[in-house]
Amino acid sequence: MKILVLNGPNLNLLGEREPEIYGYTTLKDIENEILEYSKAFEGVEIDFFQSNHEGEIVDKIQAAKGVYDGIVINPAAYTHTSVAIADAIKAVNLPAVEIHLSNINSREDFRKKSITASSCIGQISGFGKNSYLAGLYCLIKYLEK
Amino acid sequence: MKILVLNGPNLNLLGEREPEIYGYTTLKDIENEILEYSKAFEGVEIDFFQSNHEGEIVDKIQAAKGVYDGIVINPAAYTHTSVAIADAIKAVNLPAVEIHLSNINSREDFRKKSITASSCIGQISGFGKNSYLAGLYCLIKYLEK
Amino acid sequence: MKILVLNGPNLNLLGEREPEIYGYTTLKDIENEILEYSKAFEGVEIDFFQSNHEGEIVDKIQAAKGVYDGIVINPAAYTHTSVAIADAIKAVNLPAVEIHLSNINSREDFRKKSITASSCIGQISGFGKNSYLAGLYCLIKYLEK
Amino acid sequence: MKILVLNGPNLNLLGEREPEIYGYTTLKDIENEILEYSKAFEGVEIDFFQSNHEGEIVDKIQAAKGVYDGIVINPAAYTHTSVAIADAIKAVNLPAVEIHLSNINSREDFRKKSITASSCIGQISGFGKNSYLAGLYCLIKYLEK
Amino acid sequence: MKILVLNGPNLNLLGEREPEIYGYTTLKDIENEILEYSKAFEGVEIDFFQSNHEGEIVDKIQAAKGVYDGIVINPAAYTHTSVAIADAIKAVNLPAVEIHLSNINSREDFRKKSITASSCIGQISGFGKNSYLAGLYCLIKYLEK
Amino acid sequence: MKILVLNGPNLNLLGEREPEIYGYTTLKDIENEILEYSKAFEGVEIDFFQSNHEGEIVDKIQAAKGVYDGIVINPAAYTHTSVAIADAIKAVNLPAVEIHLSNINSREDFRKKSITASSCIGQISGFGKNSYLAGLYCLIKYLEK
Amino acid sequence: MKILVLNGPNLNLLGEREPEIYGYTTLKDIENEILEYSKAFEGVEIDFFQSNHEGEIVDKIQAAKGVYDGIVINPAAYTHTSVAIADAIKAVNLPAVEIHLSNINSREDFRKKSITASSCIGQISGFGKNSYLAGLYCLIKYLEK
Amino acid sequence: MKILVLNGPNLNLLGEREPEIYGYTTLKDIENEILEYSKAFEGVEIDFFQSNHEGEIVDKIQAAKGVYDGIVINPAAYTHTSVAIADAIKAVNLPAVEIHLSNINSREDFRKKSITASSCIGQISGFGKNSYLAGLYCLIKYLEK
Amino acid sequence: MKILVLNGPNLNLLGEREPEIYGYTTLKDIENEILEYSKAFEGVEIDFFQSNHEGEIVDKIQAAKGVYDGIVINPAAYTHTSVAIADAIKAVNLPAVEIHLSNINSREDFRKKSITASSCIGQISGFGKNSYLAGLYCLIKYLEK
Amino acid sequence: MKILVLNGPNLNLLGEREPEIYGYTTLKDIENEILEYSKAFEGVEIDFFQSNHEGEIVDKIQAAKGVYDGIVINPAAYTHTSVAIADAIKAVNLPAVEIHLSNINSREDFRKKSITASSCIGQISGFGKNSYLAGLYCLIKYLEK
Amino acid sequence: MKILVLNGPNLNLLGEREPEIYGYTTLKDIENEILEYSKAFEGVEIDFFQSNHEGEIVDKIQAAKGVYDGIVINPAAYTHTSVAIADAIKAVNLPAVEIHLSNINSREDFRKKSITASSCIGQISGFGKNSYLAGLYCLIKYLEK
Amino acid sequence: MKILVLNGPNLNLLGEREPEIYGYTTLKDIENEILEYSKAFEGVEIDFFQSNHEGEIVDKIQAAKGVYDGIVINPAAYTHTSVAIADAIKAVNLPAVEIHLSNINSREDFRKKSITASSCIGQISGFGKNSYLAGLYCLIKYLEK
Repeated sequence: MKILVLNGPNLNLLGEREPEIYGYTTLKDIENEILEYSKAFEGVEIDFFQSNHEGEIVDKIQAAKGVYDGIVINPAAYTHTSVAIADAIKAVNLPAVEIHLSNINSREDFRKKSITASSCIGQISGFGKNSYLAGLYCLIKYLEK
Repeated sequence: MKILVLNGPNLNLLGEREPEIYGYTTLKDIENEILEYSKAFEGVEIDFFQSNHEGEIVDKIQAAKGVYDGIVINPAAYTHTSVAIADAIKAVNLPAVEIHLSNINSREDFRKKSITASSCIGQISGFGKNSYLAGLYCLIKYLEK
Repeated sequence: MKILVLNGPNLNLLGEREPEIYGYTTLKDIENEILEYSKAFEGVEIDFFQSNHEGEIVDKIQAAKGVYDGIVINPAAYTHTSVAIADAIKAVNLPAVEIHLSNINSREDFRKKSITASSCIGQISGFGKNSYLAGLYCLIKYLEK
Repeated sequence: MKILVLNGPNLNLLGEREPEIYGYTTLKDIENEILEYSKAFEGVEIDFFQSNHEGEIVDKIQAAKGVYDGIVINPAAYTHTSVAIADAIKAVNLPAVEIHLSNINSREDFRKKSITASSCIGQISGFGKNSYLAGLYCLIKYLEK
Repeated sequence: MKILVLNGPNLNLLGEREPEIYGYTTLKDIENEILEYSKAFEGVEIDFFQSNHEGEIVDKIQAAKGVYDGIVINPAAYTHTSVAIADAIKAVNLPAVEIHLSNINSREDFRKKSITASSCIGQISGFGKNSYLAGLYCLIKYLEK
Repeated sequence: MKILVLNGPNLNLLGEREPEIYGYTTLKDIENEILEYSKAFEGVEIDFFQSNHEGEIVDKIQAAKGVYDGIVINPAAYTHTSVAIADAIKAVNLPAVEIHLSNINSREDFRKKSITASSCIGQISGFGKNSYLAGLYCLIKYLEK
Repeated sequence: MKILVLNGPNLNLLGEREPEIYGYTTLKDIENEILEYSKAFEGVEIDFFQSNHEGEIVDKIQAAKGVYDGIVINPAAYTHTSVAIADAIKAVNLPAVEIHLSNINSREDFRKKSITASSCIGQISGFGKNSYLAGLYCLIKYLEK
Repeated sequence: MKILVLNGPNLNLLGEREPEIYGYTTLKDIENEILEYSKAFEGVEIDFFQSNHEGEIVDKIQAAKGVYDGIVINPAAYTHTSVAIADAIKAVNLPAVEIHLSNINSREDFRKKSITASSCIGQISGFGKNSYLAGLYCLIKYLEK
Repeated sequence: MKILVLNGPNLNLLGEREPEIYGYTTLKDIENEILEYSKAFEGVEIDFFQSNHEGEIVDKIQAAKGVYDGIVINPAAYTHTSVAIADAIKAVNLPAVEIHLSNINSREDFRKKSITASSCIGQISGFGKNSYLAGLYCLIKYLEK
Repeated sequence: MKILVLNGPNLNLLGEREPEIYGYTTLKDIENEILEYSKAFEGVEIDFFQSNHEGEIVDKIQAAKGVYDGIVINPAAYTHTSVAIADAIKAVNLPAVEIHLSNINSREDFRKKSITASSCIGQISGFGKNSYLAGLYCLIKYLEK
Repeated sequence: MKILVLNGPNLNLLGEREPEIYGYTTLKDIENEILEYSKAFEGVEIDFFQSNHEGEIVDKIQAAKGVYDGIVINPAAYTHTSVAIADAIKAVNLPAVEIHLSNINSREDFRKKSITASSCIGQISGFGKNSYLAGLYCLIKYLEK
Repeated sequence: MKILVLNGPNLNLLGEREPEIYGYTTLKDIENEILEYSKAFEGVEIDFFQSNHEGEIVDKIQAAKGVYDGIVINPAAYTHTSVAIADAIKAVNLPAVEIHLSNINSREDFRKKSITASSCIGQISGFGKNSYLAGLYCLIKYLEK
């Protein structure tokens, strides 16, 4: 079982960017936690990818077909604007879980609306790094069915 | 660590109600899975409550103060209309996780808006019974901090 | 053939409440007219229930499953706000007819929108007590098919 | 007591047009059922008129004054767009009942709004041909008062 | 002259709930202040009722007819959603004064709109416990006319 | 100088239709007043046309080209819905004056918006039959320039 | 019969300001034309007032009570924003006619909405100086009734 | 293969009407070009129909059933307002192609929305007479499948 | 303790203006009642100011700084449009209470929105002259703290 | 005559992606059909470009200046969000034709609005691969003028 | 070269009013800085004017014609409501630069919309007193062209 | 002091693109003017960057951290759509000034709304190349504080 963890724009700055909202953990820290957490599940392999470019994320999702069994994605700012990422997820027909570090329901109005979420099987927001772990858990359970 | 799992209107019908959307699992089945899952966490006790009455849910949240450490809540239909439940969660100042069986981002427009979610620390939707398990996980991790 | 006639909040005050809109007939008068009218249909039994509580109406609809063949419902104020009642009707999968005494198309804007009507097979509004009789007729014809 | 049953655009195609929504009954079938049903009421005479032209429907409503005691009208597509028909009904000051075969509350958003309904005494939708019979019943009861 | 003071959901938590918005005074404190204040008006009797249930508040308003001369109501969260409470106040035809502790014009957008206020003779918001006293004063003056 | 006075749907009922809004004067009365008034202007000839059919009004406007020098039009209900009449006026490129008997700014919201007025040189509303006379005056002055 | 002609902000610049929209005629020219035109009506006296100050226009309308029989007003920019002028016209209860030089239906969206027009008996727009003459005519006819 | 080319209101004025938007070609010119162009396709017969009446267009579409294999329609002004034409196209279940001479995406806001297009297989706008030729091409290709 | 009572446009007409909404009491009557009522509070001095000019009201509020301890303001029509008055109240940093004679929640939609209220400590509406007295009471209690 | 055919995000997946909406034809198949079709026009050369990157599409459009005579573009998901592509087309001032495989008027609301179409000479949607051929035809005819 | 610096309502309070938003500098300080800064430009003369009255600002703008070459204006609260000031600037046809001390894009929603800015050649906001200096610079450069 | 001047999509075409809106100056010309202007400020170094790719602009802003002291940015088309650029500016916590060549308040509605401006300290629009110079000035003054 191979899973791709995709991170969108500015997440590479995690730990420096507005820590009062996003916390002091870096993206590397989170990736390590994910790898650690995934050991509890037999035969699960995980790759990471981060990009600030909407087009690269679309390319990566397309390339995931036939290589990965599912996607955990934090589209960050593209959550609210990218029809192209939403289309890509639908196009490759891989189960995807949308993840947010902060609770998008408690922030600005334009952050409450997700264009990409309806292409995913579900959405988790508000639990910091645990959003990734819970998302991974839900994706694995979904794939086991 | 004591946790209250709160279920809103019509969830007692789970397994009979529109199974093409909500699946064939009953609320009892889910409660058993939650208990089973919670054994992995030492010292976690769980109680369940379901009601079709908005007022009873508000009463229960108020009564949770001093008794429980956190709440996992699926407000169901009241997600979209109840300012009173949102106020109650804020008033008792207990960490709460909002849960939905189906992906509310893929359904009717009026189901995409949550009034209660901004009073919670986070929201999980779309993973069937696993939404509860992932919610429990995130709440426990939050309380351990 | 058993039919449940459900009345929502403030309808118990019928005959006293804003009679220039709702008329001088009491709820008891209407129930008697319904019983009288129903005699024309062989084997039709009718029960009545009124409540000011959204939760009690949801409970009653759930309890109707397996007991009644159909529902005539005047959700009154809850017509415009209750996702829970709409969900309950869909959940028990009983044919329901929505009834209004006054023509909701001629009143305040917020009374023109019905949240519950799309869970029903049809809607009748504007004919006073005859809305109930016509609703009963349509429900019986629907059940005979 | 003379009653005019008015049908709007495309209803002449009934039985052929999108039968999954409107059923296989033709307009002629419905007219026969109406005549049959009306025999139960002494002294009630019924005429029928169908047109695809908004202007002809306005003309017919105007001509109804002094000839008919009331109108049962299914404005079909003009329900949602015709201020002229709404004005005509008000202008002749005859009681009218608005009828729809399907439940307009369960269809596209633009079909949920009726411009003509507020000129009528009431509205019935969702019961197929029985919408006409129930409408006739309500109109006769209204006229008997 | 008998007056009913009605309090809506979560007001029983007053003094604990978000004190930075609502202050440290409890509901009991406020009730005592109201009783104290009312002594200045001869022959005025006051009863209190609080509930978290929309339906119970509707029941209480209906029961007030013939028993009380007027109502001071703080509908709290139901201010913004309850058509049923608004209908109940109109139905019993008793003068009511709507009260808010905080200035609802300075808070979230959805708290600026009151559904219940148009059924009342007036509205007072922003003066903490003094909102109740001023409301009582205005109601008594209204009843003296 | 030849002028066409065009009247839209239901104006033939003038004097009978909702007289509390439109007055007791008939369309014939108004036409006579217009003829009388026009005598003050040398060489002005006037024709009248009324129809309940949007298409006939479009036909008439098209036919006006080369025959009339200007149009006084009361589009009545079509004011608010007819793009076709607005297009026809622009297409024939004749100066037109839009007329309303009642003050459309004081009526229902949907009557405040005019689709046809922006194809006209100006609009007059609220003065009963004098709206026609003032409109005729303005059109003649416009043509004299 | 005494009539007040009121002109709002920037109309004193008439003839200089955006002549492609408003023409080259000055306010003085228009006042002279109005005086000339008014001679046709026996016993009609006319005064003029122009101000760029909303408050002065409100003062003038209030002072008109008991002195003038009616008002012809071109509120210019205040048409779209001044609740105070609309209230003043209603308060003095004098018949007023709203006038616009250009056709406000053909301009920017925010100029299509008039706040003041619903306090007037009617509105005329689009005919340049003739809007004033036609407005005067309609006001006199209204007062003669 | 028989195809009906339907033209809506004011298109008979083509060549005279606002040529800066619609060009100097007449409707007859276009019909000739269509006939010329259609010769390239074997066995294709074409008829033309134009009307300013919404009802006549609905009648013609209904009559097309069993006579024509498809429709090329330029609903002109009715594009934006006619639910009746949209219903008629769906009712006869014939493939239709919606055509516009000008690019409706570059014009007034209300011209950007098409009510009829969702009943058609596709839409072409902006290419003058070539919109018709391209529409014919697409319809024929569709029918050949 | 010095308090300024500020009244906005058209309130000088009180007693003459639309008495069915505002009553027959004059502004002078109200001022006398306020003075009478204020005697119950030791050391309270009151001044009055009324203007129809938005700018004069802004000037007066600015001049209140250092002279008065608080403001009771009925901004009348400027309630709904004046950002300048709202800014002035915030700028001088004096506690202000917004007052309305009628219940603005029961009137036209544009009167339900207050721009000035969020600069005040609270708002009272609907009690006629008693709105002023209750406002004075709340302001004094606020200042005593 | 050189023409650039530009395809936006996810169109490289054509034939695999949601074939019930987009069909089983691949982008290569379509390109071959375009080349085949173009042979009918003398001297027409065609190049193809596809990208998932908004910036690359903007770069390509800029580079088209001086090299190509026109553009056929299917902006796919960027149709609804890209102001940058719309600006690029306007900036290079080359005639462009917007193409969609499916009828965007029959899909989700957010797909009905095109930001890019108003920068093009016209738009064609709903005819699968034939949308490209018809678009090419219209562009060539436009260039021949 | 003569330039008028115009300041709107409440700016005379600068330095006292909400210093956390607007800073501690007074209007006099800013005027001195402007004079100082202007010395760098040969032959530039500057006058200042501040008013809380919308009408006085309109008067001043009108009077500027023929006296000044350009205007630097901070309309403050009137930015968001005054059509009259916007009209005045257009009417005198003098180049104007709109200035704001704070970044209006980061404040309340109603402060983001400027009615006056579209009458100006440009807008600068967010730089405190430097907004004035930069505005002066841009105006002078504009006038030198 | 090091400053980065960032230019968004299509600005590399400056001088060719829609010169009636953006002028004939090229981006190179502007960069030279900026360098020239900056010489007046001691120790100020300036670098330039332009890209059509949203992702590249985000990358560049991230890389600016620790290298530059501030940013002057003209986000062009991305002003209105890019949450990612807005997030990037906030994330690196560098002062930024938003620049526009044309007055965005006078253009299409969708160009009036800026998503990126609230992440900047201020915004300048409408002065052509002088917008850059004024922006540089304001940024330097801000950094000197």
